[in-house]
Amino acid sequence: MSADTILAQVDVTQYEDPEKFKAFIPKLEKYRQALNDAILPQYSVELPDKVENLTAKQFNPVKYLYSQKLLTPSEFEITDSSAPQLVAKFATGELTAVEVFKAFAKRATIAHQFTNCALEIFTKDGLKRAEYLDDYFKKNGKLIGPLHGVPISLKEQMDFKGRQRHACFVSKIDHICEAHGTNAQILENLGAVFYIRTNQPQTLMHLCSDNNFIGVSRNPFNLSLTPGGSSSGEGALVGFGGSAIGVGTDIGGSIRAPAAYSGCHGLRPTSKRIGLAGSLSAGAGQESVMAVAGPLARTIEDIDYWMKHYINDGKPWEVDQNTLRLPWKEVAAPKASDLTIAVMYDDGIVRTTPPITRGLKETVAKLEKAGVKIVEFKPIRTQLAYDTVNSMYTCDGNDAQRELLAASGEPLCRLTKWSLNYGGGKELTVTQNRKLNMIRDSLRQEYTSFLIDNKIDFILSPTYNNVAPKPKQVYNWSYTSLFNILDFPTLVFQTGIFQDPEIDQWDASYKDYKFRSELEEIECNIYNPKEFVGAPVGLQLSGRRYFDEEVVAAGKTIVDILQVDLTKIK
Amino acid sequence: MSADTILAQVDVTQYEDPEKFKAFIPKLEKYRQALNDAILPQYSVELPDKVENLTAKQFNPVKYLYSQKLLTPSEFEITDSSAPQLVAKFATGELTAVEVFKAFAKRATIAHQFTNCALEIFTKDGLKRAEYLDDYFKKNGKLIGPLHGVPISLKEQMDFKGRQRHACFVSKIDHICEAHGTNAQILENLGAVFYIRTNQPQTLMHLCSDNNFIGVSRNPFNLSLTPGGSSSGEGALVGFGGSAIGVGTDIGGSIRAPAAYSGCHGLRPTSKRIGLAGSLSAGAGQESVMAVAGPLARTIEDIDYWMKHYINDGKPWEVDQNTLRLPWKEVAAPKASDLTIAVMYDDGIVRTTPPITRGLKETVAKLEKAGVKIVEFKPIRTQLAYDTVNSMYTCDGNDAQRELLAASGEPLCRLTKWSLNYGGGKELTVTQNRKLNMIRDSLRQEYTSFLIDNKIDFILSPTYNNVAPKPKQVYNWSYTSLFNILDFPTLVFQTGIFQDPEIDQWDASYKDYKFRSELEEIECNIYNPKEFVGAPVGLQLSGRRYFDEEVVAAGKTIVDILQVDLTKIK
Repeated sequence: MSADTILAQVDVTQYEDPEKFKAFIPKLEKYRQALNDAILPQYSVELPDKVENLTAKQFNPVKYLYSQKLLTPSEFEITDSSAPQLVAKFATGELTAVEVFKAFAKRATIAHQFTNCALEIFTKDGLKRAEYLDDYFKKNGKLIGPLHGVPISLKEQMDFKGRQRHACFVSKIDHICEAHGTNAQILENLGAVFYIRTNQPQTLMHLCSDNNFIGVSRNPFNLSLTPGGSSSGEGALVGFGGSAIGVGTDIGGSIRAPAAYSGCHGLRPTSKRIGLAGSLSAGAGQESVMAVAGPLARTIEDIDYWMKHYINDGKPWEVDQNTLRLPWKEVAAPKASDLTIAVMYDDGIVRTTPPITRGLKETVAKLEKAGVKIVEFKPIRTQLAYDTVNSMYTCDGNDAQRELLAASGEPLCRLTKWSLNYGGGKELTVTQNRKLNMIRDSLRQEYTSFLIDNKIDFILSPTYNNVAPKPKQVYNWSYTSLFNILDFPTLVFQTGIFQDPEIDQWDASYKDYKFRSELEEIECNIYNPKEFVGAPVGLQLSGRRYFDEEVVAAGKTIVDILQVDLTKIK
Repeated sequence: MSADTILAQVDVTQYEDPEKFKAFIPKLEKYRQALNDAILPQYSVELPDKVENLTAKQFNPVKYLYSQKLLTPSEFEITDSSAPQLVAKFATGELTAVEVFKAFAKRATIAHQFTNCALEIFTKDGLKRAEYLDDYFKKNGKLIGPLHGVPISLKEQMDFKGRQRHACFVSKIDHICEAHGTNAQILENLGAVFYIRTNQPQTLMHLCSDNNFIGVSRNPFNLSLTPGGSSSGEGALVGFGGSAIGVGTDIGGSIRAPAAYSGCHGLRPTSKRIGLAGSLSAGAGQESVMAVAGPLARTIEDIDYWMKHYINDGKPWEVDQNTLRLPWKEVAAPKASDLTIAVMYDDGIVRTTPPITRGLKETVAKLEKAGVKIVEFKPIRTQLAYDTVNSMYTCDGNDAQRELLAASGEPLCRLTKWSLNYGGGKELTVTQNRKLNMIRDSLRQEYTSFLIDNKIDFILSPTYNNVAPKPKQVYNWSYTSLFNILDFPTLVFQTGIFQDPEIDQWDASYKDYKFRSELEEIECNIYNPKEFVGAPVGLQLSGRRYFDEEVVAAGKTIVDILQVDLTKIK
């Protein structure tokens, strides 16, 4: 069966109502116009061609940015600095918040021009905030907090005081937030500068970005590909270098897929370490598999810095009762020879495409050479894990999604249909839901015991069976959602490897390969080497629950071994 | 409506099957015989009268123990020591595990003779374990762990390797555990000596102790009263001094009610700090309100010591994936003048009886005199909290309970009927269940913000509207379950105050009091001053989620101010 045949089975009449939707069309047009008007001339550039044409030729905006020097040397230096480097320079007065802000505002605006990453741009407000911070520093001789002047981007679903927040549900287009949600509040308390809120797919349940507001975002390394989802705009923006640190959310891969696809790093922390109260999703009250928020950035130091200060200085437990009072520990980057890593080459559900297979093998070879002990990881009950987590996503029979969608009657995007029905889409009883929880707990115990008993520190795995897929064509979440159901903290890191159509071809044995499922067949058939040029290879590093600090610290060691520097893609 | 009228509405045919149950009767008789045979002559005493007669005259075994010197001075000294005191003496060789064990075995056996607190006694095995520990100390010159030689009792529902574990479901009478559950395993690793497993009610959902195995336990301060539940046997045993530390569980008050009623202290920690994997209850997979395990003891130092070593040395996250990797912090007992405590005199659901009102007022007066800042706490949406948590308990339509009960067809105990139907007993949809979770989260946020915004450290409240009630007559859980739905760590501490039939009479205004509900009327009508002689008054001290250490530390300060010494009841 093709994907289209499966999608055609969805009863869209439960959700769509073209008549009702008509009333929202002018609002959506106004919304798009406002977004367009927010692109200020001082921050924008002229594109080399129409975006459609650039997309058709797999244009790489990141390379173009550097090769055509779209920024001044000073702007490059600023926007290629890590947040702790910027903050250190604010503290000595070497940099002002305003000059840093302007550089990021320009790079972010260009990112949006190429990738359609933003749902909202408010660089005027950002500038005012930067001016305020400079003024504060002048008056008080000290920084306002550990994120003083750091330009931070937020996924739109998070409440932002005085602004619209719709999470790409058309029915919520008129909702204005009375207060900041947990994340905007904590980050603002710490000194962050906000200026952009980013794109996400309808229902937040695609590893892509389509919606009825502004449509798909594009990948900053190849405009014909998706930046991933659901933190789509964060992936595209941070991958392009348009914000120092971005904040996304992840219930099935929504931080990690965008990070991996779009060429940056991203952390899905253990649940409840980062707050999520004050945000819109259809998952409210759903606790079988928890959504989490977490950072995307271009250095692991940024991720560590953000986590440390968000938790230790932000004290999220004082803002959001559902966060743990669990300080972020200082953990030094381990020596390579102290690490034991289990590698999962294939999760038993969908085999990897050639660039991922190569990326994983080359990475393993470099790690082994550096002294890391590598063992092979045979997936443990991954099909059960995948079936279970998929049932969890839809076990209210999609009631919550239906309510949010049907309220506007908006058309369903292609991948919305996929996600609504993927787990079965049947409403379960409380007893059936509890049984899913018990399966989940037995899986968590089994993976935990396996790691402890075998003295394995981390699991290394693909983020997805492929590199960044084409828009609206990503069906499998098995590699990421495994760590959602396990609730294992998982870092996506860049390997420094990119798809190469000459090298990354299916080998001779592929023509005889027997697909293990329709899903695998659909996914593998999409991969044509010529159509994924230059897509980054990002991998997952997972540790046990609450070992977030250790995962991030090991990520530093690994990225160091691999000599990855995302500011040197020139 | 009377309680009996309400109970008569339960459709017992869904659960009971007298024919099926017949097959279990000989097994239950054998079980009781084995328990009786386990009472060894060297540890037991002759009771002053038949238990029925003692019960009829509200006999106080604790007073009798001390006044009649049922133990030798050395046995008293040992069993009235705290665990850290014992361990210190093991470390110097001043005490051996065997002599300590024998003293506790005797006191525990006497406790059981009076109160029917044990489901299983295995003092022969306990003695062997103590001998092994002495041997270990002799050979290695050091203790095996921080609980070396400490006699610890466990609620029966927790798995214990090689032994039966039925949680008082008759259908599980033949179940033999293949391995220790989390708690037995961790405590054994730390050096504990096990010798007794304690009584609990059918379904574990009464604040009393009735079941078809051995029936009710009795209160060690007044045999005509219940020791509470569901950690009934732990309350009676620890209140009598028969184990150094007991381990109970609590989803609605099941550690705190027994501690308060039976004259000891007890802690309901924040969820997931102490493990519960490897135990039987009908709550598996139910996560809206979490069951927790925690300690009961006669000093706050014991509770602190147990929590610290269980967490920091036991590392429960390595044994049970569902526990937090959150170390136990050292928190010094605060100065009285640094404390701000909000007092809840009435939760708005059921008014307190005279001994509780007096106990609370006298306690507050002493705290204020010592410098504690006291503010009055007006209950926040307590009725909503109570309705919500009760719905959570039964929101699977009692499917899990029904399966466990109907498998033997055992007769329903009086309070089982109450608990099965109290929250409505209707199966909810996943969507309805999620709405309960959202109500819960809004309550948690409201209470948390209230404490933070008003700079209040703790809430002081009754544990129950009355002192220890009569067996099978306890209907209201509103005071305890509030802190289950909030997931606030809550310490029950003894005030040193006991019911006095001369003083603790309803005041003149009571005859004009208009009951706010049937529940309140039923509860208040039970209180006749003459029938609750000498029952202890224990109160609750609650803090914000994950502030367990602060709650325990403040408990030390309070008990110190009140000059409570549970080993001086003579």
